[in-house]
Amino acid sequence: MNVLLVYAHPEPRSLNGSLKDFATHRLQRAGHTVQVSDLYAMKWNAVLDAGDNTAAAPGARFDASQDSKAAFEAGTQSADIAHEQDKLRWADVVIMQFPLWWFSMPAILKGWIERVYACGFAYGVGEHSDSHWGDRYGEGTLAGKRAMLVVTTGGWDSHYGPRGINGPIDDLLFPIQHGVLFYPGFDVLPPHVIYRTGKIDEDGFERVSEALGKRLDTLMSTAPIPFRKQNAGDYTIPALTLRAGLAPDRAGFDIHLAQN
Amino acid sequence: MNVLLVYAHPEPRSLNGSLKDFATHRLQRAGHTVQVSDLYAMKWNAVLDAGDNTAAAPGARFDASQDSKAAFEAGTQSADIAHEQDKLRWADVVIMQFPLWWFSMPAILKGWIERVYACGFAYGVGEHSDSHWGDRYGEGTLAGKRAMLVVTTGGWDSHYGPRGINGPIDDLLFPIQHGVLFYPGFDVLPPHVIYRTGKIDEDGFERVSEALGKRLDTLMSTAPIPFRKQNAGDYTIPALTLRAGLAPDRAGFDIHLAQN
Repeated sequence: MNVLLVYAHPEPRSLNGSLKDFATHRLQRAGHTVQVSDLYAMKWNAVLDAGDNTAAAPGARFDASQDSKAAFEAGTQSADIAHEQDKLRWADVVIMQFPLWWFSMPAILKGWIERVYACGFAYGVGEHSDSHWGDRYGEGTLAGKRAMLVVTTGGWDSHYGPRGINGPIDDLLFPIQHGVLFYPGFDVLPPHVIYRTGKIDEDGFERVSEALGKRLDTLMSTAPIPFRKQNAGDYTIPALTLRAGLAPDRAGFDIHLAQN
Repeated sequence: MNVLLVYAHPEPRSLNGSLKDFATHRLQRAGHTVQVSDLYAMKWNAVLDAGDNTAAAPGARFDASQDSKAAFEAGTQSADIAHEQDKLRWADVVIMQFPLWWFSMPAILKGWIERVYACGFAYGVGEHSDSHWGDRYGEGTLAGKRAMLVVTTGGWDSHYGPRGINGPIDDLLFPIQHGVLFYPGFDVLPPHVIYRTGKIDEDGFERVSEALGKRLDTLMSTAPIPFRKQNAGDYTIPALTLRAGLAPDRAGFDIHLAQN
């Protein structure tokens, strides 16, 4: 199995750095092939702009979607973008590992998403009609692949619990798990979250790395989060609202889970 | 009144660029002083790393929080960071304007938050005790100031409605409004969201700019989102969970609104 680990932490000698190395070795020992996109080590350019299309006319008005689509179709994308897209095509499983900074992913990883997720590749794919609103949310270029977040937080488990002050972790991660991963087609596994990282000593590292190891050992057998597919009948089109008979009289992120 | 507009869009000749100019002039005509942090124009460095502390020892292990705090306290922060902090101190109102990219802010703005929100400035402030868990969520360096998001989306209003496939816009913005703005003390005004931007022609621009203008005219009279203050008795400390008698048997983002 081919595993791509997209990793965003500035310090190799950190808990995140150690867990990245642990994960790589664990997966390799299980017979998988691993590529790591270590965004800080790669000095990844985090800022989407007109330079992402190497054929952009100087001084032309820049449109993020149109320019991205033109460059993707013409093969004139910046080489770093095309290379990461190749890794995504190659991968059977994509793991994104990062510390939760201000309740989301670090900017360098957000910029990886924005630039690598080209129009025509990760969005703007498929036809729009009365019964199909593009290949997205369960369909798309990355369908058939699995993805999982590995996230560390300084805050406590309870701060991210159902009634915790930061908000429930599943809700905080919904824009990523549903909006970034499920959108272009990934089956999204439940996240692996490690809390209160400031308090992890050597014994603690044994514990947290073993817990991560178990998740890595079961990547292919773990049931994905049952997000509803957009074009399978649950949503009205083009309003894209959940049909009244499903999760009736409810609202919010979790109505987009098929079990609810 | 001093207004800081933090603006993140790569193309000045865009809807966002026009709205930024409109907002600046509208506020100035009302007698306010406006500063704009135009992150793309400034070529803002979006990537938090060891270089943010100009006095960092070469080769030392980097800890994002500790190094940030040390640099903030010693006055050795990178000059671009200190300059933006000065703007925040100067401002009575902060407006953040950006297109919603992958259901969050653009990476360049996320990187502004990560770098400007130093430890000791925007977090890691105040004492921790049995009744007070730091000056945050309603207290902190930026208390007494107001903040508002101005957000554009390509998607339709209904896609971001209570049962829309993208998730409700208020929930998608919660990590920013509660986690980034309320956290260091801002009173957060309801967001101003402009949907379906691909369909806005000249008449449409009149309409959307006037609607924005009304929000700018009422910055000081608009009631903030009633997020609950962390240290005012609603939460157990240190678990930081909402007390059982408040919004009983419920979970999710909206229990952190005082009205619920």
